[in-house]
Amino acid sequence: MSKLPAILSRLDADLDASLARLSTWLEIPSISTDSAYAGDSRRAADWLRADLQSLGFEASLRETPGHPVVFGHRPKPGAPHVLFYGHYDVQPVDPLNLWESDPFKPVIREIEPGRKIIVARGACDDKGQVMTFVEAMRATLAETGDLPIGITVIVEGEEESGSVNLPAFVKANAAELKADLALVCDTGMWDRQTPAITASLRGMVYQEVTITCADRDLHSGLFGGAAGNPIHVLARIIAELKDAEGRITIPGFYDGVEEPSAQQKLDWAELGLTETEFLGQIGLKASVGEKGRMLIEQIQSRPTCDVNGIWGGYTGEGTKTVIAAKAHAKISFRLVGEQDPEKIAAAFQAFVRERLPADATAEFIAHGASPAIAVPPELPALLKAQAALSEEWGRKAVSIGSGGSVPVVGDFKRLLGMDTLLVGFGLDDDRLHSPNEKYDLSSFHKGQRSWARILQALAS
Amino acid sequence: MSKLPAILSRLDADLDASLARLSTWLEIPSISTDSAYAGDSRRAADWLRADLQSLGFEASLRETPGHPVVFGHRPKPGAPHVLFYGHYDVQPVDPLNLWESDPFKPVIREIEPGRKIIVARGACDDKGQVMTFVEAMRATLAETGDLPIGITVIVEGEEESGSVNLPAFVKANAAELKADLALVCDTGMWDRQTPAITASLRGMVYQEVTITCADRDLHSGLFGGAAGNPIHVLARIIAELKDAEGRITIPGFYDGVEEPSAQQKLDWAELGLTETEFLGQIGLKASVGEKGRMLIEQIQSRPTCDVNGIWGGYTGEGTKTVIAAKAHAKISFRLVGEQDPEKIAAAFQAFVRERLPADATAEFIAHGASPAIAVPPELPALLKAQAALSEEWGRKAVSIGSGGSVPVVGDFKRLLGMDTLLVGFGLDDDRLHSPNEKYDLSSFHKGQRSWARILQALAS
Repeated sequence: MSKLPAILSRLDADLDASLARLSTWLEIPSISTDSAYAGDSRRAADWLRADLQSLGFEASLRETPGHPVVFGHRPKPGAPHVLFYGHYDVQPVDPLNLWESDPFKPVIREIEPGRKIIVARGACDDKGQVMTFVEAMRATLAETGDLPIGITVIVEGEEESGSVNLPAFVKANAAELKADLALVCDTGMWDRQTPAITASLRGMVYQEVTITCADRDLHSGLFGGAAGNPIHVLARIIAELKDAEGRITIPGFYDGVEEPSAQQKLDWAELGLTETEFLGQIGLKASVGEKGRMLIEQIQSRPTCDVNGIWGGYTGEGTKTVIAAKAHAKISFRLVGEQDPEKIAAAFQAFVRERLPADATAEFIAHGASPAIAVPPELPALLKAQAALSEEWGRKAVSIGSGGSVPVVGDFKRLLGMDTLLVGFGLDDDRLHSPNEKYDLSSFHKGQRSWARILQALAS
Repeated sequence: MSKLPAILSRLDADLDASLARLSTWLEIPSISTDSAYAGDSRRAADWLRADLQSLGFEASLRETPGHPVVFGHRPKPGAPHVLFYGHYDVQPVDPLNLWESDPFKPVIREIEPGRKIIVARGACDDKGQVMTFVEAMRATLAETGDLPIGITVIVEGEEESGSVNLPAFVKANAAELKADLALVCDTGMWDRQTPAITASLRGMVYQEVTITCADRDLHSGLFGGAAGNPIHVLARIIAELKDAEGRITIPGFYDGVEEPSAQQKLDWAELGLTETEFLGQIGLKASVGEKGRMLIEQIQSRPTCDVNGIWGGYTGEGTKTVIAAKAHAKISFRLVGEQDPEKIAAAFQAFVRERLPADATAEFIAHGASPAIAVPPELPALLKAQAALSEEWGRKAVSIGSGGSVPVVGDFKRLLGMDTLLVGFGLDDDRLHSPNEKYDLSSFHKGQRSWARILQALAS
């Protein structure tokens, strides 16, 4: 007889306790990109290690040149074995003044009748999501004394800083990590009622560029009118990255980008995503994306380019009549289809260099390059998970593309020959990477129940 | 019999003591644009007030809504009366890591045999320059017991933050400040051997612009491809501010800009300023200024536009895949001839607004607006000062235009009907507003001697 009803009841009864556990983890500010928080990152890793150990996992921290990976192993001979991936690091919290509560003091709020959320940095991305899986395992173990399949867990601490050390880690530990399937919980639902499996992911090229003109900062009254200004040089390059149609102008950029099939277009049209609905939630009305493309296509299946940060010259209070020596920008590209990250990184650098006036130079820092990924639609695990999700939510789970990147999925495929099932419970209004990040309690609770169902389904 | 030789000898003998006095003043970090230094600004003002008092001036601090003005008065009935202007505030010191010594611990260095400099923030701009005048008065008083003319001194504390409160101060104290002539020591020499009188000054419009798209920072993986990015909007606007010829494209911008006379062009050609010489000192080779204009014209008599600072999005270590809600820039224009600062500020704002895509908004902060100034070439005081400078330096003093702005000169003309004689001893390599600002000891010493000669000349 199925133990599933008992497991689900236990998850219902245990919700408050599971929220308390999540809150404890959220209180640790594991910001991976800022070395000032290195100690906190290790504390966050160790908290999860201890929790996995309490579930009967053989668990440890595995060192990398950066933050450690939490590693847990619970074999089940004769049963399928999965590798679960998540990350314990979180985004920086600036601008801090826009947070309505301390990013590392989680609070639960009711934002409309019956709709509660937990607010904290990492509430969704990715601590909340990771804990949906851990709580599903905890309840299953409590009710049945065992897990239906073998499970290895790796939860890294550098996803928000480009997972720079993860490929080497996966490669070095390939034999231990290889499984029948990978599971990732770092993606979203279609909407609050409709669960989703992410079947394609955009890749990414992230570059930092520094333009230098003079060998020092200059007084604009003495040198203005003659001396090159790197901010103008950088602005002109950024302006030229896209044409009036919203297309990216780097030569060869669209090589490997496929046009959608007629059926794909019909499926998209059926989802009925509107600008009002999607952009209205963030105070915008009209897409600035590529002209002649559907909104869902722009955000999911077309490559993009965004300047994520820019700085140079005097940025303090008041005025300074300076011509800066240097100007900087962080620029990222989301990739799709067969776009080659290395080629695009090189083409971007050439694009910048060709636009440098006399006396200006450019330097680059590569912050990562990963290709786009597609999950085979006929994967049996995908069909099983789809059924389990549909049952939990009472709506057919949809198969979607994600605009975001989860580079590890490419590593699993390339290094371990393993497909990945991406199931997550984030919502578009979760404010990932923004002030007041939140996770709906419905996502947290029904997410746990979803994983409990999926674990049983994968055993069959 | 002229007391001048004795005064000059005393300045020679007193050089070390005068450097010690300057150093004491330089140690006070009177950064006017940063409110954290308000107390230091007042200390710097009070130091000068006490020094003027020791020279027999009736001296006080005059309050303004911002930093106080040092006011000193030493009348001489029957003799000409001049109003001396300078400023005791200094520029911010960032980037601090590029300073080779503490900006507020002055050091004296010999940079080539026989060429010594004093290095500190304000060494030239404007504390060093102000003290050339004060030391000339001190030596004259010591040798003769009197000054040859009546002198009022005002030294303000907000020049580096746009002199926002000075026009009102000049207006409110017009009767007290009105004199036969104003003297300003805040400009430069032609080169290390050739003294100069600055006969024209560019005006300035300084604006800060903030572009807003979404109502919060966004995850580029979720919203990239559709949501407007204010950094791209700002970059495009900045790129469009100048055309391929280096001309500023704001409609009406060049209204009131006169073409130079044939004679002016001959005079410029005679000065023989080359790109190699002028730009070589800052590591550049070629001017990026308006095509078809002489270099000296580009930097002295043509209006300019420079972005002095830009910032938006994530600018920390590592990466963040954010689309910022806001992007900012500080943009200044140097004005010439009859260009109208108010009209140009309005035309700039219209230029920005016309380029905003749907969903983007712009806000502006006006940081000051002042017209360009020209001193009449036949002014008797100008001819007297020219002779005195030529005698001191053994080279004919040249009459030049300055690319910089000294807004108070316009206020003196407009509010007091008074012309201004601009004499200063700065050099192009003084690194004003940059790390490692310095003042040549030859500028400091021969500057004192120059003022001693000019004071005597103005009495005749």
